Amino acid sequence: MASIFTKIINGEIPCYKVAEDDNFIAFLDVNPNAKGHTLCVPKQEIDKVFDMEEDHYLALMKFSRKVAKALEKTVACKRIGVSVIGLEVPHVHVHLIPLNEMGEMTFKQKVSLSPEQFENLAKDIQANL
Amino acid sequence: MASIFTKIINGEIPCYKVAEDDNFIAFLDVNPNAKGHTLCVPKQEIDKVFDMEEDHYLALMKFSRKVAKALEKTVACKRIGVSVIGLEVPHVHVHLIPLNEMGEMTFKQKVSLSPEQFENLAKDIQANL
Repeated sequence: MASIFTKIINGEIPCYKVAEDDNFIAFLDVNPNAKGHTLCVPKQEIDKVFDMEEDHYLALMKFSRKVAKALEKTVACKRIGVSVIGLEVPHVHVHLIPLNEMGEMTFKQKVSLSPEQFENLAKDIQANL
Repeated sequence: MASIFTKIINGEIPCYKVAEDDNFIAFLDVNPNAKGHTLCVPKQEIDKVFDMEEDHYLALMKFSRKVAKALEKTVACKRIGVSVIGLEVPHVHVHLIPLNEMGEMTFKQKVSLSPEQFENLAKDIQANL
């Protein structure tokens, strides 16, 4: 069965899209650790990040860096944190999290945004790419 | 003042080294989230990962992948988690964490190892590089 991210990539589930190219997509996490929490995902459905071919993995990291730099310009934060876990959704995703404090890296503390706030945020990040 | 990681790189502070090349070093975290928790660090002292030049950043990610693959062969785990934070030590470090459960990504749950266990673990990971 297609992962939830594949459904997003195929347009079956909507997302607040931040960036996209032939191989990768970035969209806002709808249950964010902090405002601007973004997921960078390869379009190819692979479970574990270190099982990706080296070139594909490095291209994902390059794409994630570009998104992180746009995020850093958009959201007030001390720095952008990175997390790759994958114990829940078996489709590689790089979490980019605008950090002000350590609690935002624990995935326990969450923030709420309205659909309009998500939409405006995605547009603002896109404009800074 | 030199960061604690620069002191490790310069040999002023000992470490359980796992891998090293001209530009990067990897050693065991002495306060690990899980057995095998390793830090990959650029020898150049840079605060934020996304401030690294693109080529330097991608080389760090390539180095980290190599270490992660050795870790995965050495320590029983579901997958290797990745975390880059940097709110405490202002010198880029990629955490590689052998994961069995989500709590190991929160930096709250810690495990203890003896100096001998750390030493043997570092040797075993090196042997799998």
